Amino acid sequence: MKRVYMTVAYDGTNYVGWQMQPNGTAVEEVINKTLSELLGEEIVIAGASRTDSGVHALGNVAVFDTDTRIPADKISYALNRVLPRDIVISESHEVPGDFHPRHADCVKTYEYNILNSNHPNPMLWRYSHFVYLPLDTATMKAGAEYLVGEHDFASFCSAHAQTKTTVRTVYSLEVEENTESIRGMHLAEGQKLITIRISGNGFLYNMVRIIAGTLIDVGTGKIAPGDIPDIIASCDRNRAGNTAPAKGLTLIGYLYDQQ
Amino acid sequence: MKRVYMTVAYDGTNYVGWQMQPNGTAVEEVINKTLSELLGEEIVIAGASRTDSGVHALGNVAVFDTDTRIPADKISYALNRVLPRDIVISESHEVPGDFHPRHADCVKTYEYNILNSNHPNPMLWRYSHFVYLPLDTATMKAGAEYLVGEHDFASFCSAHAQTKTTVRTVYSLEVEENTESIRGMHLAEGQKLITIRISGNGFLYNMVRIIAGTLIDVGTGKIAPGDIPDIIASCDRNRAGNTAPAKGLTLIGYLYDQQ
Repeated sequence: MKRVYMTVAYDGTNYVGWQMQPNGTAVEEVINKTLSELLGEEIVIAGASRTDSGVHALGNVAVFDTDTRIPADKISYALNRVLPRDIVISESHEVPGDFHPRHADCVKTYEYNILNSNHPNPMLWRYSHFVYLPLDTATMKAGAEYLVGEHDFASFCSAHAQTKTTVRTVYSLEVEENTESIRGMHLAEGQKLITIRISGNGFLYNMVRIIAGTLIDVGTGKIAPGDIPDIIASCDRNRAGNTAPAKGLTLIGYLYDQQ
Repeated sequence: MKRVYMTVAYDGTNYVGWQMQPNGTAVEEVINKTLSELLGEEIVIAGASRTDSGVHALGNVAVFDTDTRIPADKISYALNRVLPRDIVISESHEVPGDFHPRHADCVKTYEYNILNSNHPNPMLWRYSHFVYLPLDTATMKAGAEYLVGEHDFASFCSAHAQTKTTVRTVYSLEVEENTESIRGMHLAEGQKLITIRISGNGFLYNMVRIIAGTLIDVGTGKIAPGDIPDIIASCDRNRAGNTAPAKGLTLIGYLYDQQ
């Protein structure tokens, strides 16, 4: 018996999210079924992040136990031959039997992509939130700085979340702007892609999407950067911006102390 | 009566190409139908490039004549509200009645994207050609240099093409490598996206895809950069590399002397 760690990438467009739901196909469901058929034993994976419907991942993590003789690092190759094109195992390796992706200390990183342009983009609609109002990236950067550090993020948490504490630590929060001058970006002339990249020790329910929605309001001038400390201090969800759409969000990855 | 110029972007995945075919839906077909309904008159657009099935565009060009009172620069906005998500008019404006996108002098630019990685990427399969053999970008750059300038590109033209001459001028041919360090790129750790960007006064049938296939062979070491002049001189299609798949190709745009 060995425990296998997998880095899982997926386009979330056609899934109800990571976790099984009655109303559609879940990412973990496809992987469980495919792995069980491949290895000839009943496999149940445990995922690091139960991403919502429509959210993408480059580096979600899942582990499972197996008796297979296939070397752990070859499982990714065997699995990718049979998985649908929108789910890919980026690598696999063996980990100690007591490693669990939700109980180990780690740094989590997300990106939120905003297409800021007069018109949408046919190659980016699945992976970005389209905003036609001009956004000032410099102002968004200034607003983002106030969110870095340990704070009570209750204002940036959807109401139905149940957690012991709403205190979290944001290690870094960068706002970057790319234009069509970058090769392979698929940006049309005059279009810019604004990417919010955030790392922390954990995120509340919808926290990254509410931070993205709030920074969009900062970018349009609806919220001043200097209002962010007040919004944090209020612990009032109504003071922050809207929850930005799921499709703009990508789970970039997990960095574990040990794996 | 006025003539309207449109910059047209599309994800070619679900189309048989620009031009109408019996076996599926064409991009021009969708635009003709949508424009005719919108303006209440029979519209037939003339496109600059008849891109093949599966090829994408950020900047194809189309013109049409109309009696509408809608200002030319507002047509893009009205049309994007009713077009499917994978076709977008990036801008529209009026041009002189004698302007034709296939008869005016211009610079054409294409990009070819190659995902070079152990595993594919769920966000990039529509827009890149996946190559798992390691590619040496520096060697590819060296090979690309020999293709710049005026040459007889018969070796880089599919056999069934009918043209007066196979001489063309490549103004520039750049090979760039991007990694996951660029925000918004959707590259997983260790993956690299190699983009070939080529500008010229015109391209033979499949020329960019054959150049891409040849530079891939240069990147794997199958063809030496110094063999490229011989391959050009031979005027023999069999000496060049394979025609790389359509999905990696994107028509970036046209730059007209006058428009």
